[in-house]
Amino acid sequence: MNYLEEFDKIMTDQAEIALATSIDNIPNVRIVNFYCNPEKKGVLYFSSFKNNPKTVEFSKNRNVAFSSVPRNGQNEHIRVTTAVVSKSKLTIYDLKKEFVSRVPDYEMIIDQAGDQLNLYELKFREATVIVDMNNISKIRL
Amino acid sequence: MNYLEEFDKIMTDQAEIALATSIDNIPNVRIVNFYCNPEKKGVLYFSSFKNNPKTVEFSKNRNVAFSSVPRNGQNEHIRVTTAVVSKSKLTIYDLKKEFVSRVPDYEMIIDQAGDQLNLYELKFREATVIVDMNNISKIRL
Repeated sequence: MNYLEEFDKIMTDQAEIALATSIDNIPNVRIVNFYCNPEKKGVLYFSSFKNNPKTVEFSKNRNVAFSSVPRNGQNEHIRVTTAVVSKSKLTIYDLKKEFVSRVPDYEMIIDQAGDQLNLYELKFREATVIVDMNNISKIRL
Repeated sequence: MNYLEEFDKIMTDQAEIALATSIDNIPNVRIVNFYCNPEKKGVLYFSSFKNNPKTVEFSKNRNVAFSSVPRNGQNEHIRVTTAVVSKSKLTIYDLKKEFVSRVPDYEMIIDQAGDQLNLYELKFREATVIVDMNNISKIRL
């Protein structure tokens, strides 16, 4: 099995991650939409309203973890335990087409409130690809 | 809107949570199946194989957080930022019917490997009920 191909397939097919942060060793987690560019390995983009509490958490501890959220009935997913979050140099407008194609509701949100959204990047070098209980592998990106 | 009723409805309808832990301020997250008894507020049950890495994380830091995972197309979900994890006095066999009714695959897992599963409880006093962007409320349980 080519796990790098599986990684690309899962990250293209799935649209949400559960994103975990930690402040003073107290974890927090929320589900966010994301976009990964298959040509740019090890980077995942998501947006947040500028005044959202998670943006404060990011500024206090950039170490985060995530799991992609399987769609109904699926088992396959991606897990990353050592990612670093930072504000992207891109804006949500740069990736509007990509987000809207994955989450159609984003068109209205970006049109109405794009200026209030910050674009963030998660960077990571390793990911665990879980295809099913018997096919699991760690890959380097 | 009766947010306690919404809480019960969401926790009955949805079957998975994204469960976040933290060790040395490094977060981790995985998606697990759960069961909540509507008669027993503020307790959520999930199981884990005894040798799974998350069981070590629980023993090092019992403070965890979770978000329920909306089913496809839904927005409503529950978030809890201050939960405490502990091993349950019940076993997976005590809740077999409840887990299988939510996740049919559990029948085979419990029949074949129930002895290797530990049942855990998350206890929490507050939850945030997110029905949609305009209907969000914190409740006490």
